[in-house]
Amino acid sequence: MAMDLNSDLGEGYGAWRMGDDAAMLAIVSSANVACGFHAGDPLTILSTLREAAQRGVAVGAHVSYPDRVGFGRRKMDVTPAELEADVVYQIGALQGLAAAAGTRVTYVKPHGALYNTIAEDAAQGDAVIAGIRAVDPTLILMGLAGASILGRARDAGLTVAAEAFADRGYTAAGALVSRREPGAVLHDPEQVAERMLRLATEGAIEAADGSLLHLDAQSICVHGDNPAAVAMARRIRDRLVAAGVAIAPFHEAAR
Amino acid sequence: MAMDLNSDLGEGYGAWRMGDDAAMLAIVSSANVACGFHAGDPLTILSTLREAAQRGVAVGAHVSYPDRVGFGRRKMDVTPAELEADVVYQIGALQGLAAAAGTRVTYVKPHGALYNTIAEDAAQGDAVIAGIRAVDPTLILMGLAGASILGRARDAGLTVAAEAFADRGYTAAGALVSRREPGAVLHDPEQVAERMLRLATEGAIEAADGSLLHLDAQSICVHGDNPAAVAMARRIRDRLVAAGVAIAPFHEAAR
Amino acid sequence: MAMDLNSDLGEGYGAWRMGDDAAMLAIVSSANVACGFHAGDPLTILSTLREAAQRGVAVGAHVSYPDRVGFGRRKMDVTPAELEADVVYQIGALQGLAAAAGTRVTYVKPHGALYNTIAEDAAQGDAVIAGIRAVDPTLILMGLAGASILGRARDAGLTVAAEAFADRGYTAAGALVSRREPGAVLHDPEQVAERMLRLATEGAIEAADGSLLHLDAQSICVHGDNPAAVAMARRIRDRLVAAGVAIAPFHEAAR
Amino acid sequence: MAMDLNSDLGEGYGAWRMGDDAAMLAIVSSANVACGFHAGDPLTILSTLREAAQRGVAVGAHVSYPDRVGFGRRKMDVTPAELEADVVYQIGALQGLAAAAGTRVTYVKPHGALYNTIAEDAAQGDAVIAGIRAVDPTLILMGLAGASILGRARDAGLTVAAEAFADRGYTAAGALVSRREPGAVLHDPEQVAERMLRLATEGAIEAADGSLLHLDAQSICVHGDNPAAVAMARRIRDRLVAAGVAIAPFHEAAR
Repeated sequence: MAMDLNSDLGEGYGAWRMGDDAAMLAIVSSANVACGFHAGDPLTILSTLREAAQRGVAVGAHVSYPDRVGFGRRKMDVTPAELEADVVYQIGALQGLAAAAGTRVTYVKPHGALYNTIAEDAAQGDAVIAGIRAVDPTLILMGLAGASILGRARDAGLTVAAEAFADRGYTAAGALVSRREPGAVLHDPEQVAERMLRLATEGAIEAADGSLLHLDAQSICVHGDNPAAVAMARRIRDRLVAAGVAIAPFHEAAR
Repeated sequence: MAMDLNSDLGEGYGAWRMGDDAAMLAIVSSANVACGFHAGDPLTILSTLREAAQRGVAVGAHVSYPDRVGFGRRKMDVTPAELEADVVYQIGALQGLAAAAGTRVTYVKPHGALYNTIAEDAAQGDAVIAGIRAVDPTLILMGLAGASILGRARDAGLTVAAEAFADRGYTAAGALVSRREPGAVLHDPEQVAERMLRLATEGAIEAADGSLLHLDAQSICVHGDNPAAVAMARRIRDRLVAAGVAIAPFHEAAR
Repeated sequence: MAMDLNSDLGEGYGAWRMGDDAAMLAIVSSANVACGFHAGDPLTILSTLREAAQRGVAVGAHVSYPDRVGFGRRKMDVTPAELEADVVYQIGALQGLAAAAGTRVTYVKPHGALYNTIAEDAAQGDAVIAGIRAVDPTLILMGLAGASILGRARDAGLTVAAEAFADRGYTAAGALVSRREPGAVLHDPEQVAERMLRLATEGAIEAADGSLLHLDAQSICVHGDNPAAVAMARRIRDRLVAAGVAIAPFHEAAR
Repeated sequence: MAMDLNSDLGEGYGAWRMGDDAAMLAIVSSANVACGFHAGDPLTILSTLREAAQRGVAVGAHVSYPDRVGFGRRKMDVTPAELEADVVYQIGALQGLAAAAGTRVTYVKPHGALYNTIAEDAAQGDAVIAGIRAVDPTLILMGLAGASILGRARDAGLTVAAEAFADRGYTAAGALVSRREPGAVLHDPEQVAERMLRLATEGAIEAADGSLLHLDAQSICVHGDNPAAVAMARRIRDRLVAAGVAIAPFHEAAR
């Protein structure tokens, strides 16, 4: 039995740091690496990629809207043509840096507001899909388990990987509990680790209303932007490993 | 007999246009395409690359300092590590867009202040060489005929291509006449076309002092940023073609 | 009788030009000057402001979302706090440059997607109002005649100025005809000049359905981004002046 | 007896933090606030200014080259006209935000590579002086004690303030010990505090060769980019205050 752990990395910018990439690269099996649009300058990215290469962590392009000051968290009404080209540019830039670091990009995970928007917005979603296919149709698209974007990408010929969020509550219908409601974010590392173990072994997770939710996820997203988050990520990894679940890139399991 | 004509293209940015890419792509055999650091947004670049692909024009990465507002024309004291990563990032981004446009990047030509700086600055020059090698050591470096960077690149294992500037005067020693001195820039299309024909057929050009200068150039740089420049470029092409010199990418002749 | 003519200026960026500022400054009485977020670098802006000062053209801050590559034309889901600070920053920067040019900023006109969004979006509109008030509550807000933002600004204590678009069709209800429908944009300079003369003298304009629409406008927006636009702007000015309507900044008439 | 303590603040950018502004604003009497070119987005800057206003800390414009990814630490060959306009733009933007925060900008301190360059480079130095004068000739220029820029600024009619660096070694000639040599940076808070007390009370500091150096400084620059730096700054303040030296903005003492 195996499960992938992924986290957002390479998110420094010039003199600014963000998160503890070295610590997280010892925990996760997949690194969503910033491509310069929401975070990440070339040298910071290259340094993260070198460490990822050394540790055998898989590399994904964490593509974003062009909004550095907003960290890619603000929805933008970009045209499909602009978005497609922006996605291609970012993937290519990361591929170049990955080659220089002795590794390669195997998947693409949209970041922040773009991630949320394409989960259901067909026009922007199709532009992302087109951008990925234009660079390399063997790149895997990682998206929210249950989101329609995954079906659209599969229909377009892409391989996809579904992810669950370790520290988020789920509705019985399989959606994330809104951040405006209680239970949206979980803070207890033990509880989260147990939930993720069940997800990895049974493909199930307890929803906010207590019902059991089936979730088909090939990867679990963990955070590393503060010490508590790093500790929770490590706890999840340790719990899975202790139960015999190997932590490994999702590629084998991707469909 | 063959000669390459190259020009800077893809230099629009968002709503801003620069030069007449369509006209120049009917004239040149090699396009130095902006990579987003001094000019060029992804969609503008992609559009230029598609046209270049359609016309069989070779594509080079026109890498620059990160200085869009200064159009890459201002020297920056970047560190070698920063510069190397910046070069890798830009080449990779252009490779991605080139793949999406159905073509590929075959050479690298530094832009503006970076071009001038590395002509003789060993630290920045070696960083550019290292960046090229890190992405793809088969990429050719285009530089100023006679500049020491070409020897350094060759020593590092890169293939290089030397270029002459169609509209610039040369000293007897083979350097460009300084822009602060008379004769730096030539404006007569006929005179320029004749000079370039002699360069293509005899490998020689008349220096500012009237002496004959041997210049080993595999490419001629022409400009397209205003109608007069486009007309001069067309005149050069027509003159060469009329004399039996084929206009073709420099790859065959590169050493 | 007097009417104000306004146009977007200072929209070059570094090496890139946009529109013919010198020509337009001989036509208009108010210049909406870019503040660096969608267009305009400090030196370009300063040069435009110097020319505006020399010609006695009033200066407005053409504030925008932070989206240079999109020229401020793409809606962004910025927070009210971010937007308010962005508005303050841009006004202040232009005030500094205006002081250096020997003039001053007297009004604020949001640009592009921000202009359209705040016409009806209360949260972003209130943030713009708050930003203006925080810098200088005597600054006048220019907005679309009939848009709710003008009432909100007036309620908040700001003086406002309503503008009409010279080359746009209007519905009987006073809205702009959508660009997706016929009649959205008018191309005949004579027709447009006659419409604007009627607007200036009678406060009325013929709507798309032939009915007469009352429009309370203190300014008319004209464009200068291509030679035909400049020619139309000049025709409007000439027609108004010939009929005895003085072209002057809207300040006196603003309420 | 009084001395000013100044520190670089407002250096976050979007989601990125830099230094502990709240802690430093309880220590210093003057805040060099980033203006957006090397660091600082409008909302971050506004928040720092509000806190500075509340604490009665004086505000200076920390103007920079336009190089965010390099944090303004890389010399750029900008033209005097570009630099002058860039300085004006940044001062104006900060003035706008300061007005919104209920305070005002009283001085200008160039940042990083610009600070070092203008210490002796007359062309860039004069451009900075011209920019300050163009916005408001009563703004004070803060610079390195002993640097020629201070004399040039004084000759141009500006009031200047000279600063010493708390944690740097000085040569007998009054220059900073080069960072490539031993003794360039001092790490012992007690030693540094004693040195600064002597500077404040006697106008003297011990040079690297043991000789006594007279230094005419109206302000002491302290750092806040890490906990040790904050602790050193607090130690300096406490030592001065304990010895009866009031910590207050340099305005009264400026000449």
